[in-house]
Amino acid sequence: MTILRIFIFLALFTLAIGNENENLNSHVFPRPLIIEYPEYNEPQLKEYDEVQLKCTSWRFAVEANNLSPWKKIPEECADYVRQYIVGLSYKMDIDRVSNEAGDYAKSVILGDDGKDVWVFDVDETLLSNLPYYSDHGYGLEVFDSVEFDKWVEKGTAPALESSLRLYQEVLNLGFKVFLLTGRSERHKNVTVENLMNSGFRDWDKFILRGSDDHGKAATTYKSERRNEMVEEGFRIAGNSGDQWSDLLGSSMSNRSFKLPNPIYYIP
Amino acid sequence: MTILRIFIFLALFTLAIGNENENLNSHVFPRPLIIEYPEYNEPQLKEYDEVQLKCTSWRFAVEANNLSPWKKIPEECADYVRQYIVGLSYKMDIDRVSNEAGDYAKSVILGDDGKDVWVFDVDETLLSNLPYYSDHGYGLEVFDSVEFDKWVEKGTAPALESSLRLYQEVLNLGFKVFLLTGRSERHKNVTVENLMNSGFRDWDKFILRGSDDHGKAATTYKSERRNEMVEEGFRIAGNSGDQWSDLLGSSMSNRSFKLPNPIYYIP
Repeated sequence: MTILRIFIFLALFTLAIGNENENLNSHVFPRPLIIEYPEYNEPQLKEYDEVQLKCTSWRFAVEANNLSPWKKIPEECADYVRQYIVGLSYKMDIDRVSNEAGDYAKSVILGDDGKDVWVFDVDETLLSNLPYYSDHGYGLEVFDSVEFDKWVEKGTAPALESSLRLYQEVLNLGFKVFLLTGRSERHKNVTVENLMNSGFRDWDKFILRGSDDHGKAATTYKSERRNEMVEEGFRIAGNSGDQWSDLLGSSMSNRSFKLPNPIYYIP
Repeated sequence: MTILRIFIFLALFTLAIGNENENLNSHVFPRPLIIEYPEYNEPQLKEYDEVQLKCTSWRFAVEANNLSPWKKIPEECADYVRQYIVGLSYKMDIDRVSNEAGDYAKSVILGDDGKDVWVFDVDETLLSNLPYYSDHGYGLEVFDSVEFDKWVEKGTAPALESSLRLYQEVLNLGFKVFLLTGRSERHKNVTVENLMNSGFRDWDKFILRGSDDHGKAATTYKSERRNEMVEEGFRIAGNSGDQWSDLLGSSMSNRSFKLPNPIYYIP
């Protein structure tokens, strides 16, 4: 609103000067341009403000896990989500999650049995599929598993930079790193290659969906795998994921770190 | 950024006209005012944008439960949080949570044993303490339990309108309503009176912190009480709270609804 007020003030000020001057030397000013400015833009700005408000509220509901499973982003939020992703906000949010996770990791007193674990999801947590989603409306299109598989099979997803930093940090601190992804076993080789090429190495377990897991909700599949870790005596100190289904369920981590993702939802 | 661009364009346009005119009739314009405008405001706007970005990112981290326990809001976010609360955003976010919760409540198939429960937290969930926090910097001051108790003892906290709507809706649908609050047993009478005066009635249990619960983390205390509900055969279908400590832990609800709260954090 402050920007709007400054804008209107400046516009009216220009207009006032324009009026004053028109009387003096009307040939100088392209006056209609100036007059049309506020009249044309004020409703536009109001609409812009309203969409910003609504879509920010929607995004909060996404990140606080208040929404029912959703298949695509609201039409009216298409520009908003794209701006969020390509602007500074997404990077800022991701950096913050990694920094918070890093601070917490440093505060954990590790046992000397090598049983302290950090669990990482893969997609939109370690690897970014933005090159794919930028071609598919940043969540505006319903997920197309055939098209997405083609992208996965290229093996060219780049690392999320701050996640790579966190990844190396927790390894250096002595945590075991377990990767727990919703990707299928049949994509294991290409995903391993993709991860290595993007700088991720030295994980201790790499868990993908096996034939028994297909059709299971991600929360169920991931909880079952975490239960196994706990049964094997591991302590899950941290868990990083962009979906609540990475983080909630049973054998939850001591602390979870929810990376932002306003593009898609996995139940 | 669009607003900023329009603003800069208009400012430069004004400046250009100003320059053009100064050559023609320099006595007419209060020229320094015009020149100073963009120079003075551009950094201000940038700073405003940066604070908006940072504080939005901080608020997301709060709502996604990514932050360590915090005692007060960041100094630089004081205006941001106040604007969020007194502007449209807070109301919009709260309405959305209640609407989502209501839609979900309607979708639940209740048993005929009267064992389906909706759990509500009290502060910043059913009752609003904004009249108190507006006098205490909206989270900028460290929590003062003595001062806050004085406010509680007045018993004048208003209802959050959309929570009252949800409350009545779940009762009408046949859920039992259990109130589970971090308030102390010694505030039971005044809180009951406050709730009734604000329109909340017909709850089935009202659980406050007893003498054994003081000093327990909210997550522990609330989990223990939910465990008891489950042991008594109740099914917790929904849980509404403004703190993650209302929602996480054991015997978690089938679905949880996180109301926004950028003012304070309870571990």
